[in-house]
Amino acid sequence: MGKHYLLNLYGCSFVLLNDERFLIDLLENAASASGATVCQTIFKKFEPQGVTVLCLLSESHISIHTWPEEEKAAVDCYTCGDCNPKIGCDIIIQQLQAETHRLNYIER
Amino acid sequence: MGKHYLLNLYGCSFVLLNDERFLIDLLENAASASGATVCQTIFKKFEPQGVTVLCLLSESHISIHTWPEEEKAAVDCYTCGDCNPKIGCDIIIQQLQAETHRLNYIER
Repeated sequence: MGKHYLLNLYGCSFVLLNDERFLIDLLENAASASGATVCQTIFKKFEPQGVTVLCLLSESHISIHTWPEEEKAAVDCYTCGDCNPKIGCDIIIQQLQAETHRLNYIER
Repeated sequence: MGKHYLLNLYGCSFVLLNDERFLIDLLENAASASGATVCQTIFKKFEPQGVTVLCLLSESHISIHTWPEEEKAAVDCYTCGDCNPKIGCDIIIQQLQAETHRLNYIER
């Protein structure tokens, strides 16, 4: 039922992790680069900090949850069909300038 | 960064897997039973069949993607904090009347 990457990011900048506009663009670009189609994106900014963005794709979903105060984030890139969600993960790792990350792959 | 259950369901009824209203209620109930708070729910019904539902939670997200024609579905129950997303998984397994399932747990 598809390819699911679970990506934990550490040592990212507080500012980027708390910027919902940046994160929405990042996820939508990562989805497109993976070969997926974004149907709808929703987000929530938490107080005093933290953002969640969920993109509903024609091919499953991509999500991010951030904890800026701890400089960390959790990303899921899950797609079915002919997409390559690893490409999206690589973009997110690079754009969020993570010091370290952990990537788990699950064949759904 | 939280508890993430990846649940694959097999041998479910076509009718339930193609009923977006049923699936929205199912996920929102599963989230609440897990101790999570639903902030926003979105869904898409695909043609000729298939549904995706995404619930944005105060504590991360819960999602389902269904393939009614193959009687299968992929669920993610991911929460941070004091929630117990395993409770939500058990509700979904029971309510979707899955013949078999596979449950993976990832400590994020």
